[in-house]
Amino acid sequence: MTERKNIAIMGAGLVGSLLSLYLAKHGHKVDLYERRADLRVSTIDGGRSINLALSDRGWRALKGLGIEEEVRKVAIPMYGRMMHDEQGNLTHQPYGKEGQAIYSVSRGGLNMALMNLSEPNQDITYHFNRQATDVNLRTNEVQLRNVETGNTETIQPDLLFGADGAYSVVRGAMQKAERFDYQQSYLEYGYKELTIPATADGGWAIEKNALHIWPRGNYMMIALPNPDGSFTCTLFFPYDGEHSFAAIQDKNDLLAFFNKVFPDAVPLMPELAQEYFENPVGALVTVKCFPWSYKGTSLLIGDASHAVVPFYGQGMNAGFEDITVLDQMLQQFEGDDWEALFKAFERRRKPNADAIADLAVLNFEEMRDKVADPRFLLRKKIENKISAQYPDKWIPLYTMVTFTDLPYSYALETGQKQDKIMKKVMRHIKSLEDYDKPEVQQLLEKQLVQKEKLTPFRG
Amino acid sequence: MTERKNIAIMGAGLVGSLLSLYLAKHGHKVDLYERRADLRVSTIDGGRSINLALSDRGWRALKGLGIEEEVRKVAIPMYGRMMHDEQGNLTHQPYGKEGQAIYSVSRGGLNMALMNLSEPNQDITYHFNRQATDVNLRTNEVQLRNVETGNTETIQPDLLFGADGAYSVVRGAMQKAERFDYQQSYLEYGYKELTIPATADGGWAIEKNALHIWPRGNYMMIALPNPDGSFTCTLFFPYDGEHSFAAIQDKNDLLAFFNKVFPDAVPLMPELAQEYFENPVGALVTVKCFPWSYKGTSLLIGDASHAVVPFYGQGMNAGFEDITVLDQMLQQFEGDDWEALFKAFERRRKPNADAIADLAVLNFEEMRDKVADPRFLLRKKIENKISAQYPDKWIPLYTMVTFTDLPYSYALETGQKQDKIMKKVMRHIKSLEDYDKPEVQQLLEKQLVQKEKLTPFRG
Repeated sequence: MTERKNIAIMGAGLVGSLLSLYLAKHGHKVDLYERRADLRVSTIDGGRSINLALSDRGWRALKGLGIEEEVRKVAIPMYGRMMHDEQGNLTHQPYGKEGQAIYSVSRGGLNMALMNLSEPNQDITYHFNRQATDVNLRTNEVQLRNVETGNTETIQPDLLFGADGAYSVVRGAMQKAERFDYQQSYLEYGYKELTIPATADGGWAIEKNALHIWPRGNYMMIALPNPDGSFTCTLFFPYDGEHSFAAIQDKNDLLAFFNKVFPDAVPLMPELAQEYFENPVGALVTVKCFPWSYKGTSLLIGDASHAVVPFYGQGMNAGFEDITVLDQMLQQFEGDDWEALFKAFERRRKPNADAIADLAVLNFEEMRDKVADPRFLLRKKIENKISAQYPDKWIPLYTMVTFTDLPYSYALETGQKQDKIMKKVMRHIKSLEDYDKPEVQQLLEKQLVQKEKLTPFRG
Repeated sequence: MTERKNIAIMGAGLVGSLLSLYLAKHGHKVDLYERRADLRVSTIDGGRSINLALSDRGWRALKGLGIEEEVRKVAIPMYGRMMHDEQGNLTHQPYGKEGQAIYSVSRGGLNMALMNLSEPNQDITYHFNRQATDVNLRTNEVQLRNVETGNTETIQPDLLFGADGAYSVVRGAMQKAERFDYQQSYLEYGYKELTIPATADGGWAIEKNALHIWPRGNYMMIALPNPDGSFTCTLFFPYDGEHSFAAIQDKNDLLAFFNKVFPDAVPLMPELAQEYFENPVGALVTVKCFPWSYKGTSLLIGDASHAVVPFYGQGMNAGFEDITVLDQMLQQFEGDDWEALFKAFERRRKPNADAIADLAVLNFEEMRDKVADPRFLLRKKIENKISAQYPDKWIPLYTMVTFTDLPYSYALETGQKQDKIMKKVMRHIKSLEDYDKPEVQQLLEKQLVQKEKLTPFRG
């Protein structure tokens, strides 16, 4: 066990709150500083949450503290995508094998659960309404302003963790230090949250155990179920152009457009117009940077070091996996060389953070466009057959990302190789039955001889 | 002519100073605010200048104001690269055709010349020692601190130009606005300035009219001539590793290393050790961002919007070309829609700024490594033969960038196509004479039929 440290975590969101539990487990004293008020006594920002899809990497981090069953109670399994076409016809595509699911959870609900689990720990203290106004990396001093009273204070922890999200103040200080690589890029799309409320009898108006998608080529709407019978819908829509936020100026524009392209959803959305014009348009940013640490005194984690767009449902899961990896490293950690620890951590995680950022952007295209294409759905079925026939040589990309702990960078690279093989295979496929044709089987055998066995390493 | 505006330019460097002259020509009142003291009355920062290579794009902007002859007096033509190997043997490679040259100029000297030309203009006022501490893009207010007196003032111009360089404060404000794409990336190399002084009789110790390179694979030194007989040398060197700034700890390390790898230069550098340990290590950053403007009130220009590494000698030239393009647009400009003007400007320049940034990084490899390779030099000669034989179909990449006003993006794309053809051609080439072999001539004819005629557009 290493020396006990006074640790400050900036940001008491999902990653900050979970991290506090792990650091306390390793014997450290932890203070969390959060700009916003306590979620549990105050209403949260409305209309900007995007429901979260908890998958294997996220569960693993919760399991490491024995709290996964607590969370499972408020999580709704989604076993596949349910596509809605412009006539309201439905098509279902499973995410994985029988029983494999991603889980819809509310960001606020999960955050409160983590706070409630950590606050009784006498080594963990939450400080709300504290805005970091200045970070001095060299002295590790942070100036905080109490947004309720206007008072300021300065803290000087032994170690500073920046879990303060995509617009991290700690990262802002690093950006001014020497030789900090940094990139922020925005999609030409924004998002807006809408609601399908519960039915009169408290049930779900559409299939409960699915992630619903209305794919429309250049834009899409999705819906995730909530425990109270409602669905949180998110419209991903261009800022400008023929069909865009800019093109919808009033209620008439809105209803004409929604009735045309989402006709089966409109009757289920009684507050559509009010929500549309009241809720803000959220921006979709990807952030990449390096390094993630400054000497042995501060470290970025979660969105602060690798904010991704939401289309792979992996933002929170990647942040939680950061914590799992850090925990593994802390279990091996001896002595007091935090600089070496932080450097080893950032070197190990950076390629994976880059990979999931790129995968998330690529998956937007798949969700808004390809899932409406019968050829694409046939290809997914063929791929499932390959994976069933060659289980030690082929795991579909989505499965690697969502249902394993294979490194994201390995998943991306392997997925690209598999994509090339799929393109060759699909030239011979007109229907699912064609999978058994000799030329398809011979092609697969030839291709898969060249392909290495899967899962050469984990990390 | 459009309405006369009060314009503030942040930064009175090369781009800011030249821009002031063009804006005044278009009838506007211009104030320049510069953090540093007046170069003409105070010594400049030592050891961080990198001599500049003025080429066609830069000359064009000077010519537009009729000031090119003034500058030519203090500029030294460099007709080619002079390579120094580890035994001190020399190889010369011309930059272009007979008479084509890039010109070594001193940053400080050129800046002073531009200030002296603009200051008598009653519409142009310089304000030195003014540091911008805050920029409010919505109100166009800039807070300035006088670094001599400590006094602060707030200005509110009609239009604000950010010509404040790679670490632009105006860009910093834009980065906090909505949906601003931004990227800063550093090479793993730093640079250090050294000197070869004039000989006792005031002459140049090595060939005056060349850019000298000591290419050593993973690192290099270059030297550019000055009018006083001296050369400004720049060592481009890894921060870490076997041969690196980190590996040279004292004078013994330094001399052992320099005597081994730059033996012909050491006797010419009497102050080597002192300069090496006194001069700072400069960082090599590339900055890309978009948009470059905020509404119709502020615009980034030069390094502020597109800082590049120095290896193509195009940083200043690209900034000056920004001004040429803006001038062309202002000549067509009617009415008062500066937002549309700024948007048209950034759309036109952005692909070219990205291209020269990428070309500059690629050219580092060429300079430090490939120019020492006889095969590479043979290839350059073969390429010159192709260009002479097919002048309307082939301009070498370096020539397009340096001696034409073809868009950088077009040069990059065409250069990549030509590179593919050169690879095919060089399979048949062992010596310069092989160029006339029938299979080479047939290959070229076949390849060049597919290739479009050059210069389809300019911009």
